[in-house]
Amino acid sequence: MRPVVVAGVGMIPFERRDEDSLMDMLATAGLNAMDDAGLGDRPIDSVYVGNMASGLFNHQVSVASALVDRLSLLPAAADRVENGPASGGSAIKNGFLAVASGFNDVVLVVGGEKMREVIGPKATDIVACMTHPQAEYIYGVTLPAMAGMFARLYMEKYGVTREHLSMVAIKNQTNGLLNPYAHIQMKITMEGILSHPQSHINSPVVADPIHLYDCCPVSDGAAAVLLTTEEIANKLKKPLVTIDGIGQATDTHTLQERSDPTDLKAVTLASEQAFKMAGIKPKDIDVAELHDAFTILEIAESEHAGFFPKGEGAKALERGETQIGGKLPINPSGGLKARGHPVGATGVAQVVELVWQLRGEAGERQVKGAANGFSLNFGGFGNNVLAFVLRRKS
Amino acid sequence: MRPVVVAGVGMIPFERRDEDSLMDMLATAGLNAMDDAGLGDRPIDSVYVGNMASGLFNHQVSVASALVDRLSLLPAAADRVENGPASGGSAIKNGFLAVASGFNDVVLVVGGEKMREVIGPKATDIVACMTHPQAEYIYGVTLPAMAGMFARLYMEKYGVTREHLSMVAIKNQTNGLLNPYAHIQMKITMEGILSHPQSHINSPVVADPIHLYDCCPVSDGAAAVLLTTEEIANKLKKPLVTIDGIGQATDTHTLQERSDPTDLKAVTLASEQAFKMAGIKPKDIDVAELHDAFTILEIAESEHAGFFPKGEGAKALERGETQIGGKLPINPSGGLKARGHPVGATGVAQVVELVWQLRGEAGERQVKGAANGFSLNFGGFGNNVLAFVLRRKS
Repeated sequence: MRPVVVAGVGMIPFERRDEDSLMDMLATAGLNAMDDAGLGDRPIDSVYVGNMASGLFNHQVSVASALVDRLSLLPAAADRVENGPASGGSAIKNGFLAVASGFNDVVLVVGGEKMREVIGPKATDIVACMTHPQAEYIYGVTLPAMAGMFARLYMEKYGVTREHLSMVAIKNQTNGLLNPYAHIQMKITMEGILSHPQSHINSPVVADPIHLYDCCPVSDGAAAVLLTTEEIANKLKKPLVTIDGIGQATDTHTLQERSDPTDLKAVTLASEQAFKMAGIKPKDIDVAELHDAFTILEIAESEHAGFFPKGEGAKALERGETQIGGKLPINPSGGLKARGHPVGATGVAQVVELVWQLRGEAGERQVKGAANGFSLNFGGFGNNVLAFVLRRKS
Repeated sequence: MRPVVVAGVGMIPFERRDEDSLMDMLATAGLNAMDDAGLGDRPIDSVYVGNMASGLFNHQVSVASALVDRLSLLPAAADRVENGPASGGSAIKNGFLAVASGFNDVVLVVGGEKMREVIGPKATDIVACMTHPQAEYIYGVTLPAMAGMFARLYMEKYGVTREHLSMVAIKNQTNGLLNPYAHIQMKITMEGILSHPQSHINSPVVADPIHLYDCCPVSDGAAAVLLTTEEIANKLKKPLVTIDGIGQATDTHTLQERSDPTDLKAVTLASEQAFKMAGIKPKDIDVAELHDAFTILEIAESEHAGFFPKGEGAKALERGETQIGGKLPINPSGGLKARGHPVGATGVAQVVELVWQLRGEAGERQVKGAANGFSLNFGGFGNNVLAFVLRRKS
C-alpha cells in the first residue's frame, strides 16, 4: 500500500443551520479542504461522502454524485458510505484505500448530516433506526436509553461516579470555548450542574443516570479531508500528516447478546489494529479525539483503546491528565459533547482536528508539540467502530 | 494493485418477498456466495453492503454491521455503500479496493433492497429521492418520466422506433424464462404488446413513449460476491474469474444541464476507463449485462459503452445480434426488465451473472465459450455510472 497523506482539511461550524441544505454544507466543507490543500487545477479523482440518513432526514439519496456536480468536479467518481455514527470514519477508510491501492491519486472525503430539518423527537427516532428492529427498536429503545443502561453498569463495575461524568462534560465544554467550530459555546461548572438540591433542574434527567449535560447536542454540520499520495503532497505547502493506521471492528448488534455489556470489544480490536498497522503504541499518542456522544463513552473508550487500564480512565480524568496540557489531552476540540454530532460528519471532524493539532494550527486549544494523534469513531452502540492513527512527518 | 478474483457468487430469486426482511435476504445471498466459494473456516475480513434506501424503505440504517452479526462474521469490518441504483456497483468497487490494496484478503459484497415493504406509489417516490431536490423532485418528476423524455429524444435523433423498444422487452423476458432467479417469468410477443388497436390496453402508457413493458418491475432481492486474492482463490475449486477493469464516472445531476441530453457521457467515460484498465476493447467482450431499467437504456448504453456506433444499437438488436447465440448477447439473465431491479442488488446481480457465464454455469441461457464479460450499473439518470470488465483466467 502507498502511504496516504491528509493534504487538506476543512469544516464549517457545527450548529443549527436552518438556511443551509445538506448539499450546501457538504460543498462548503469540501471547498474549505480543497482550499487548505492548495491543489490548484489538479483534478480530483473521486469523492466519498460519509452520511448516515439523508433519506430519512432530508428525503434525498445519492448525495455523493450530487456533490460532485455541485462542486464542478465532473466526471470524478462518487460514493456515499453509511455506517451509522461511524459513517465519517468509514468514508475516510474507503477514500484511504482508493489512494493506498493506486486506483486514485487525489480523493476528497466529506462527512455531513443535516439533522435539524426534522422536528423534535423525530431526530431521536431516526438515530434509533440503527438499533435492532426486532430486539430493540420495536420496544422503543433510544440511544440515550442504551447509554443510560451502559453507564449504570459501568459505574457499578468500575466505581465511576456522577461527578466523573460531569467532569467529562465540563472539560469538553471548556475546550469547546476555544474552538470556533464547536456548537456548544457555554461554560459549565460542577456547582452549576450538581449543587442544586434537585440536580435535575439545572441538568434534567434524560435516561438515568444520563442527564442533559451528559449528551451531545443534535447538530447540523460537515467536515472534509483531502487525501493524496506523498509525491503529490510534497509539492504542496502544508506539513505532511499521514494516516498510518486504520482499524475497524464489529460487535453484536444488540447489547443484550454481549457476555459483558461493559466490554466494548470492537473498540479494543479496532484500536489494536490501528496501532499495529502504524507500528506505535497507545503511550506514543500525544492527542486523542474520542466519540463522546455520551460522557460515559469518553471514559470507557479511553480504557478500551488502551490509554488506561480498565477502571483507571475516570481517575486519570480526575487527575486532569486528559485536559489540554495534561499527559494525554482527550477531545481538545470539545468532542461530540461541545463540537456537536452531525452524525455523518463526526468521524471526519475528528481527523480534521487531529490534522490541525499535528500541524500546530489548533490555536488556543493547541496541544504543544503533538506529533502522533488517535481518533475513534463509534457506530451503533459500539457495534461498528473505526480507529485511526495519524502522524506528522515533516 | 493485486489482482482480485470473484471466488464465490450467490443470489436469491428476485420477486415480491413478503416473508423476508431485508436482513433475511442479505444473509441468504451472502451465505450462498460463501458456500459457492467453499472457503471453509477462513475468516472474512470485511463485508460491504450495497443498498440504496433501507432508511426510507425499511426504517433501518447501519445494515452492514447488522449483517456481519447476523452471519456470525464478527469482528469483520462492515461498510454500507449507497449510490442510488449504482449502489451494488459501488459496493463491489470498494470491496475490490480493499483486496487490491492488500488491506483485506477476503471480502464479501452483498447488494440488496426490499422495496415492496412500502405500498403503491411510495416506492416511486423513494426512487425519485435521487433526483435534484430543487430542480426536479419538487416538480414531481419520477424516473419513468425522465426515461420518457429521454426515449422521445433518442427515438427522434436516432430513428429508434416503438417496435425497437418492444424488441428489448421481448428479448429480455425470453431470456428471463431461462433464469430461475428472474422476477418476471412471462413470454411476451410483438403481437401481444402492439397488435391491439389501442396498444395501451395490453401495455398501458406509463410516461409516453414508455409503456408498461418498457419498465423493470419493483422487486425485492439480494445478490453477493466473494472477492479474494489469486493466492487464496487458487486453493479453491472454482475456475478463476477476475475483475480486470473498473470504471466510474459522474454526470450532471439534472438532465436539463446536459448540452445533449441523449449523450450519456458518464456511460462512455466509465466504460472507456474499465476497458483501458483491463487492456481489452469492446469487440473482445463475449457477454454483457446492461442496466435496462427502461428498454431505451439498453439500446443507448450498448452504443455509449462502445459496442455499436451511435444509432446502430437498435439495428443490431433488430438483426438479433444481442440475443443469446448472437454476436454480442446482452442481458442473457433477462436484465433488469425480467430479473427485476431491487436497486441496491442490481450491480451485484450483474456481476454474479457474468461469473456464471464465464464459468460456463449459466445453464440454458449459457453464452457458449464466454471468456470476457462486461457489466454496466447506471445510477440516477446516468449521473453515476460504474462499468466492470471480468475475465476467465483458468
